Amino acid sequence: MAKSNVSKATLGRLPMYLEYIKSADIGKTISATAIARALSLGEVQVRKDLNAVSGIGKPRVGYTTHELAEKLESILGYDKTTHAVIVGAGKLGKALMGYNGFKTYGLEIDCAFDSDESVIDNSQVFHVDNLGKYCKEHDIHIGILTVPSSVAQSVCDIMLDAGITAIWNFAPCRLKVPDGVVIQKENLALSLAHLNLNTK
Amino acid sequence: MAKSNVSKATLGRLPMYLEYIKSADIGKTISATAIARALSLGEVQVRKDLNAVSGIGKPRVGYTTHELAEKLESILGYDKTTHAVIVGAGKLGKALMGYNGFKTYGLEIDCAFDSDESVIDNSQVFHVDNLGKYCKEHDIHIGILTVPSSVAQSVCDIMLDAGITAIWNFAPCRLKVPDGVVIQKENLALSLAHLNLNTK
Repeated sequence: MAKSNVSKATLGRLPMYLEYIKSADIGKTISATAIARALSLGEVQVRKDLNAVSGIGKPRVGYTTHELAEKLESILGYDKTTHAVIVGAGKLGKALMGYNGFKTYGLEIDCAFDSDESVIDNSQVFHVDNLGKYCKEHDIHIGILTVPSSVAQSVCDIMLDAGITAIWNFAPCRLKVPDGVVIQKENLALSLAHLNLNTK
Repeated sequence: MAKSNVSKATLGRLPMYLEYIKSADIGKTISATAIARALSLGEVQVRKDLNAVSGIGKPRVGYTTHELAEKLESILGYDKTTHAVIVGAGKLGKALMGYNGFKTYGLEIDCAFDSDESVIDNSQVFHVDNLGKYCKEHDIHIGILTVPSSVAQSVCDIMLDAGITAIWNFAPCRLKVPDGVVIQKENLALSLAHLNLNTK
């Protein structure tokens, strides 16, 4: 797949669409209108979502059901599990390792890496010196950065050396990376602040 | 403050604006243009952000510096810390308790509540039976829900009974709440899925 135009909001609704078209006793074709009605969603929204995933449906017919299901499964990664690793096995790193729900999107967090001997157990947490070898052997390109800001950039550099090209950054700081590397910043404090703002 | 129109994206940039106008040796007025230039941001974006926070500035003058700073501080909650509690002291709950960065937005997580005696220490984690009393005594209306989906709704109901009106929900499920209660769903798996999608 080329760089996708599927937004995070759209992506969040795809599992719902897939569940519906797989569970419902529907025919060979399915329309955005029918899906919107069944799931109590806005028709314009469903139409836009499906358009991003599978192009414009046929007028008055919609989508071929099994083709749409395949497209959804492909984007959600159900056809092939993607593996990721965590760097930083502190509380947050461990919480993410134990977090259920990644599988919904065809994702699996293999293990974590750290430099602190006291958290290394060589079963779920390995020494960060082994990161490059592990990523090469298991063809891993996604890393989750859960270290303090003070060491985030140096750990980021280690991840890049290890062949990681996409980083989910939980450290509250900006990372300098070369072109072609994707950084997604997670700002948990911001989510809580926004909730607070909306209740005032 | 009435229900705010400040988006999450805007909110994320406000600490940066505040830091700049407080640190810079600027005069009695400051314009969106000057802020945009200093922070290497798009002028249209800065203009929109400041408009959401403090209305339209005066033509060719901009904003009165100390008034803008006060507005930013008020929205960011620097003038009054907001307290929140966690319900569910598992790995994720504990990770959030230890997460730095909430203070940037004038937020503080006081403590956690759980029903599992093995995690209750009566210093940071209390029995959930005390939730209502604690929230009443400390005037708390924001709760962070970090329990498994299977018990999320029943725990949500306990939180509502305790006087909580805004819930940050980490359980991968929908919660039924009465009108007037704000739910913000956090889907960590979705963030990772989106990163994965953007690197394919």
